[in-house]
Amino acid sequence: MTAVTTLLTAIAGIGRDARSGGYVRPVFSTAERDLRSWFLAEAAQRGLDVEVDRNGILWAWWGLAGPDAVVTGSHLDSVPGGGAFDGPLGVAAAFGAVDVLRERGFTPARPLAIAVFPEEEGSRFGVACLGSRLLTGALSPDAARTLTDRDGNTLADVFAAGGIDPRWIGPDPETLARIGVFVELHVEQGRGLIDFARPFAVAESILGHGRFKVSVRGEGNHAGTTLMADRRDPVVAAAAMVGAIAEVAGAIDDARATVGRFEPVPGGTNVIASSVDFWIDARHPDDAVTRRMMADIDRMCGDIAAARGCEAVLVEESWSPTVGFDPTLAGRLGAALADAPHLRTGAGHDAGILASAVPTGMLFVRNPSGISHSPEEYVTDADADASAAALADALQELLS
Amino acid sequence: MTAVTTLLTAIAGIGRDARSGGYVRPVFSTAERDLRSWFLAEAAQRGLDVEVDRNGILWAWWGLAGPDAVVTGSHLDSVPGGGAFDGPLGVAAAFGAVDVLRERGFTPARPLAIAVFPEEEGSRFGVACLGSRLLTGALSPDAARTLTDRDGNTLADVFAAGGIDPRWIGPDPETLARIGVFVELHVEQGRGLIDFARPFAVAESILGHGRFKVSVRGEGNHAGTTLMADRRDPVVAAAAMVGAIAEVAGAIDDARATVGRFEPVPGGTNVIASSVDFWIDARHPDDAVTRRMMADIDRMCGDIAAARGCEAVLVEESWSPTVGFDPTLAGRLGAALADAPHLRTGAGHDAGILASAVPTGMLFVRNPSGISHSPEEYVTDADADASAAALADALQELLS
Repeated sequence: MTAVTTLLTAIAGIGRDARSGGYVRPVFSTAERDLRSWFLAEAAQRGLDVEVDRNGILWAWWGLAGPDAVVTGSHLDSVPGGGAFDGPLGVAAAFGAVDVLRERGFTPARPLAIAVFPEEEGSRFGVACLGSRLLTGALSPDAARTLTDRDGNTLADVFAAGGIDPRWIGPDPETLARIGVFVELHVEQGRGLIDFARPFAVAESILGHGRFKVSVRGEGNHAGTTLMADRRDPVVAAAAMVGAIAEVAGAIDDARATVGRFEPVPGGTNVIASSVDFWIDARHPDDAVTRRMMADIDRMCGDIAAARGCEAVLVEESWSPTVGFDPTLAGRLGAALADAPHLRTGAGHDAGILASAVPTGMLFVRNPSGISHSPEEYVTDADADASAAALADALQELLS
Repeated sequence: MTAVTTLLTAIAGIGRDARSGGYVRPVFSTAERDLRSWFLAEAAQRGLDVEVDRNGILWAWWGLAGPDAVVTGSHLDSVPGGGAFDGPLGVAAAFGAVDVLRERGFTPARPLAIAVFPEEEGSRFGVACLGSRLLTGALSPDAARTLTDRDGNTLADVFAAGGIDPRWIGPDPETLARIGVFVELHVEQGRGLIDFARPFAVAESILGHGRFKVSVRGEGNHAGTTLMADRRDPVVAAAAMVGAIAEVAGAIDDARATVGRFEPVPGGTNVIASSVDFWIDARHPDDAVTRRMMADIDRMCGDIAAARGCEAVLVEESWSPTVGFDPTLAGRLGAALADAPHLRTGAGHDAGILASAVPTGMLFVRNPSGISHSPEEYVTDADADASAAALADALQELLS
């Protein structure tokens, strides 16, 4: 078998920023396409049949593609400056698990597939879990086609260039019906497993998660000739909003609100900006609390803008309700992994989208740094290699 | 003669963003190089000899290049999203003024040159008036060569690609010695001329002007899994700094401090940034006040960063002291323009740099919007066309 660390080492140079050590692998970039080629090669080496469905999801089949399949996998795209494990670990562990099962001489009673979902991070088109949302119908193909990246390219054009005909993206009940059960293995993205001193956990639920864009309009002008009192500076207004957002979220138990992207227009040093776009990522275990928090933030942004002669518009870009995973499946997975602990997670995953359509579970691998979406995200070699056998144990339980 | 409006119409499409109507003409971009070609063509059409000096400054000569020349001109680069007049008006008016003087049958007793200075806005490499600073020695060639643009290109590479050998940039006493007097005509960038109901003014002084870069380091992490209390979020810290900067400047009579460029790294929606870079443009008529204000801001940024578990480093990128223009020259220029009013300005100009080396003056043209560094910057057709004769009057006074 090929060790998971060996599989990951083979792609360690793809899309890596040499200065920061972070990965930049947006969907259908050269980097992500190189990763897709790597996936095809690894599948071919194992004699797995590969297909690319009409939403750009990759499938590698052990056994004939068909209904009641046990499906595992994850994603290969990254956030800008992400870590090495977020996504690829689940794909590499899936190949490793196939190797382990074969070495055990195990013959699956049902087909097994490894899937790779595009644009899980939403870092290119702003909608997280885009592939699984299209597959399940949670995102309409019309809405998807007109999404644009930072350079103004539409999703339709980018998918077409990636070999996916954008006319045919959208709900795919036949493909979905083949999934009997889906299990995603993923690096844990917080400190959840550190306290347990255990390498693996089973997911209990995923926090609800919304993305919102705030556009603040003021009046562009010259930084030298315009007196402070004459300004309608959207950067100052937006900065006040950022502060208020952190305060509001900080005052609500278990809430998170993050501004990680903030873009003044035109963005010149000696120019009072004419507008600012910034994005809010908001989460709480209780969707009603997230909704109330965002309503408060919306009102506050309006007030702050008005006080500075600006205007602010807050728009929801995506919304994923809190997902509780199938408790029976979670119980079976936990039992197969030596009574692995159950964890809630704040991070979104394709598994969270698929859970609305098929029995779905997740396995988490310990992250000793407790940091993710950063080059500091970390999995020990021992845990990475052990994840193949752990996933094999879980799959064997489901395939038997 | 060619009307100034006709000259400007010929370049109205170069580097224009169709959506915003603003101009993006960074030094040695395709747009700015197209403008340089336009300059060469207009000079050739008037039989003016053209040279490009070793700092990339363009010179078009009426008469033999030589000492004691009367030099006029401005710049062709723009801030991102700038107006149509900031820079090009002074160049177009210079060609118009040559036409007017020739129609008057005037024969200059001294050589006349039209000059175009590169990177006046500093929008590509961060140092305003870069060409005139190199010429006069206010910026060392070693420091200049290693400046980088947003894409990481060095000034040395960009200048080389633009046909300027970066080994030879730097102080150029021989070229400087040819300038007997320099007069720059420029669109007024504030509301200064609106109240006078006059089309032209003479510059009295330029506000001191500093550019500073603030780098805030925190801890990058996952937006969903990291509790608010566990964060060291540099965006929240930097946003608080932006608010504090506006407050400090607002409390000092006649001070300006602007943050127009703000860049979280890596800049993903679902990523707590690991760092933020932002830039401060600071100005006050009294340099000591600007220095004190920046010392306050530096201390405040440190305090705000520390309170949020971050670190902030403030670095001066450029500094231009307040410049008072030659009062005798200003008097002659004002008299030649029907007793034009004298104005202080908050905007920096190459004339402000050259004033340290040669007798220098400026003429301002009314801007009815009072807005600059924005597509809303404006000069009426009548004022633009009249600027040729006004500049001709001023030059004739100096050339006689």
